[in-house]
Amino acid sequence: MTAAAPSPSAGTPDNGAPSVAVIGGGQLARMMAQAAVALGVPLRLLAEGPGVSAAQVVADTTVGDYTDLETLRTVAEGCSVVTFDHEHVPTAHLHALSEEGHACRPGPGALVHAQDKAVMRARLTELGVPCPRHAVVHDAEDVARFAESVGGFPVVLKTTRGGYDGKGVWVVGSAAESGDPLAVAAAKGVQILAEEKVDFRRELSALVARSPSGQVAAYPVVESVQQHGICWEVVAPAPDLDPELSVQAQQIAMTVAGELDVTGILAVELFETRDGRVLVNELAMRPHNTGHWSMDGAVTGQFENHLRAVLDLPLGSPQARAPWTVMVNILGGDHGELSRDLYAGYRHVLARDPQLKVHLYGKDVKPGRKVGHVTAYGDDLDEVRERALHAAAWFRGDLGDESE
Amino acid sequence: MTAAAPSPSAGTPDNGAPSVAVIGGGQLARMMAQAAVALGVPLRLLAEGPGVSAAQVVADTTVGDYTDLETLRTVAEGCSVVTFDHEHVPTAHLHALSEEGHACRPGPGALVHAQDKAVMRARLTELGVPCPRHAVVHDAEDVARFAESVGGFPVVLKTTRGGYDGKGVWVVGSAAESGDPLAVAAAKGVQILAEEKVDFRRELSALVARSPSGQVAAYPVVESVQQHGICWEVVAPAPDLDPELSVQAQQIAMTVAGELDVTGILAVELFETRDGRVLVNELAMRPHNTGHWSMDGAVTGQFENHLRAVLDLPLGSPQARAPWTVMVNILGGDHGELSRDLYAGYRHVLARDPQLKVHLYGKDVKPGRKVGHVTAYGDDLDEVRERALHAAAWFRGDLGDESE
Repeated sequence: MTAAAPSPSAGTPDNGAPSVAVIGGGQLARMMAQAAVALGVPLRLLAEGPGVSAAQVVADTTVGDYTDLETLRTVAEGCSVVTFDHEHVPTAHLHALSEEGHACRPGPGALVHAQDKAVMRARLTELGVPCPRHAVVHDAEDVARFAESVGGFPVVLKTTRGGYDGKGVWVVGSAAESGDPLAVAAAKGVQILAEEKVDFRRELSALVARSPSGQVAAYPVVESVQQHGICWEVVAPAPDLDPELSVQAQQIAMTVAGELDVTGILAVELFETRDGRVLVNELAMRPHNTGHWSMDGAVTGQFENHLRAVLDLPLGSPQARAPWTVMVNILGGDHGELSRDLYAGYRHVLARDPQLKVHLYGKDVKPGRKVGHVTAYGDDLDEVRERALHAAAWFRGDLGDESE
Repeated sequence: MTAAAPSPSAGTPDNGAPSVAVIGGGQLARMMAQAAVALGVPLRLLAEGPGVSAAQVVADTTVGDYTDLETLRTVAEGCSVVTFDHEHVPTAHLHALSEEGHACRPGPGALVHAQDKAVMRARLTELGVPCPRHAVVHDAEDVARFAESVGGFPVVLKTTRGGYDGKGVWVVGSAAESGDPLAVAAAKGVQILAEEKVDFRRELSALVARSPSGQVAAYPVVESVQQHGICWEVVAPAPDLDPELSVQAQQIAMTVAGELDVTGILAVELFETRDGRVLVNELAMRPHNTGHWSMDGAVTGQFENHLRAVLDLPLGSPQARAPWTVMVNILGGDHGELSRDLYAGYRHVLARDPQLKVHLYGKDVKPGRKVGHVTAYGDDLDEVRERALHAAAWFRGDLGDESE
């Protein structure tokens, strides 16, 4: 690890491989690093602090602030491509880097649609992509007017920037309840987007990798099960999905990727409505939790395809290797010392299921925090789900001796 | 990278995971590191030099000399387990580390059988494991006497220690030809082992992972095709192998692993004779080239199972995920500049075959050097072989534009 200069252990070998700068040291960067090992592509990491998830496994790590342009420049220098673990790098800095000749992938023109929900809704509507009805609101009267236009309360209010994993999202039952969200937005200097509360059957995710040359690889559409606003379980492919809706979801993802000039992974989170439509909920322009199943369940995992895409290499097959793959997040439990010792969970989990794949992120365990995920695959969905859910529950400490 | 102290980027997270010290910075350590990322197990590497294959991808790397006991102690300190990228750590040092309480896996009592061919042959013979006929020889007369006992020349001479990838092995047609090998051995202070030249149909490899608790996972027996003494192509499972011979090969590997108390991966390289027997050729006590197919072709790759084994965690399923998997090594070509740019090979190789898996080791390309491997899998062996062989040949530069 170094303050600024690249580590002497991470010299580019004499085999032509370019270096990739990754901004952000979370688990997505960690899993990119794993894919980069196989590809023989050197990574340079900008991490938020020493010892964060990806910094543990990337030799060429700089600790610094991604909101500081000079730091970004230093890390980008000498790398062929700059890509991201998260969407929080200031848009202005991305423009500056791009203008100075650094290939940011995705670029700022694309990334703003994953950073600002109002910009995203406006653009998708322009493209004819089906979305929930929406409006930017400035006060309680706007909220009341919007509610009336969509058939009444409840409606959903979201900050246009900065929300994730259920943060910055409110469901309000009256105009009066919009006070808090409006105050939060005002304090943060962002706007509030109002959206109809969609009567959805379930949530889907359509993931594609797209390269600067325009090649696209579309992963099977998956079902994503949320718990308290956090992605919890993903089933690939989405069970009993109408083939037409599946194609439509993939087409939406390809359209969005192409029209917005996304490079790398684009995840389109969708609502499947009870009346048989798909509506875009959110966009993410990076490897996504709903694509983790692909590491063990697809021919080419999303992290490998993200790197291949940002490097403009031909993309790998996104097809599934088994009829069913289920990914379940390991969330930190609230059982004190026992929950913290994830490693101890291996003794039971691995012995019970020799086919299970486990990914731990090297994070300190805190209640509700994503600290890893498990993946099971096979021919029988019920059995595959049971295996993955059991393992994740065990790691969380919900099934251990202390509950007996 | 540090001279002695662990890197600040590689602190053990508060989730109970122990650290593993890996001695040696080649591609085997590199691929162990990749598996360790998923398991959430911190690695500490002792590398031969800055920028070697594994040092590029392990944050907590110490550069030093593995023949220096003090360096080994420093690296082992604070790690739960010490394991190895190669078999060249002096046996005396391993005994010293073990006596000081460091868990060396495999331990020196096992590892000596992979370090010294005379010790290995004596022990396997004692265990009733089928081997080629053999004798330690001291001079040309011994060689002549041995040749007579096995039906005449040619016979094979091997240095008892220090040989690999065809180095330290000679096929001699007369006692007179044994002068060079005997001189080499004398100069190195090692002995010469004479072995009958086995009339073999092909070479097989039986790989097992074994934990200190005694759990064993046996991989399917594979066929290994050598070229100039270097493993070149591996087909999993070995085509048309008599099921009885397959079981026998797996039993030999399990017997050897158990009796020699091997921990981690044991690879038993075997001759399949034309008269339908299997004879042990070599032992390796580490992840092995004949097991690389398992990374993409088995439920649990050999590198993950090696780590699980040395940590005494329950082992993962070694079963194949596809009917056929073929691994072909990428050897450095001799086409000058073109051969050196492995990365340029991606444009063709990945576009031609979106299902191919490529592993590049971050090594400088030199003619004949192992610099990566490719893996293809599928239902049709001929097609799978063609895909893997084509890709490796392309990377080597044998099929590019310059040959037209």
